Amino acid sequence: MDQPFPLPAPMRRALELARAAAAAGEVPIGAVVTRDGAIIGEGENRNRRDNDPTAHAEIVAIRAAAQALGDFRLTGCDLWVTLEPCPMCAGAISHARIARLYYALPDAKGGGVEHGARVFARPQCTHRPEIYGGLAETEASALLRDFFAARR
Amino acid sequence: MDQPFPLPAPMRRALELARAAAAAGEVPIGAVVTRDGAIIGEGENRNRRDNDPTAHAEIVAIRAAAQALGDFRLTGCDLWVTLEPCPMCAGAISHARIARLYYALPDAKGGGVEHGARVFARPQCTHRPEIYGGLAETEASALLRDFFAARR
Repeated sequence: MDQPFPLPAPMRRALELARAAAAAGEVPIGAVVTRDGAIIGEGENRNRRDNDPTAHAEIVAIRAAAQALGDFRLTGCDLWVTLEPCPMCAGAISHARIARLYYALPDAKGGGVEHGARVFARPQCTHRPEIYGGLAETEASALLRDFFAARR
Repeated sequence: MDQPFPLPAPMRRALELARAAAAAGEVPIGAVVTRDGAIIGEGENRNRRDNDPTAHAEIVAIRAAAQALGDFRLTGCDLWVTLEPCPMCAGAISHARIARLYYALPDAKGGGVEHGARVFARPQCTHRPEIYGGLAETEASALLRDFFAARR
């Protein structure tokens, strides 16, 4: 269920990026990294366009933000993404020292935060962000549903 | 314990890459992707050099192999790495459809294959490689020990 407050601007931007991914024939997922409220990195799914199995929206946004800062640690930065991160992306979020993780829609099938591998819940995980899930479930799930329906 | 057989050439190359990473001041981990026995992608840890929190050896090697093949799926390819992959890299290995995963040394602290998140053991994991761990424990652990000892 959507939260009873206006959607924060970074999540609105992540949803825009997800729509752009769909228009390019990619799974519609978008992500942004913010620092002090300003967007410093953006990403959308680019697996097919870039021939890159690692090019999930979160990875693309994290790499862009790290380039922008000139640092491999994004200490104090937040990540906003339209779907619960998979284990790969959850691991990247931990390595990057992301402070807060916001996602629009939980993902029981592929998620690795509150489902499956639960990467941040393991004692081996040396950095856990604060986690805010389910910020825009209706909009993010409609995007994914429409994308996969059009492909059947 | 090391296996009682000569180390396969791809793992010898991964250890060379790990030594190169150490010489560059990076955590000494190396990886290669092979297809039909030939190396099609190589990687060493590049976090600091590239300002990239995702630039673990496995991710670098997988991205290079996918570029070489012009495909975001490395179906039928194998990955050789000097340390048990972390959850991020295990997730990338699954997304890339790597057929066989070989690693030199298990990693109880950071590993996500036989430790911690155990990414491939989750019912949500849609592609699991065959896994061969512990191929060169003595050599890989000496590399890591020397690197961290020199930094203390």
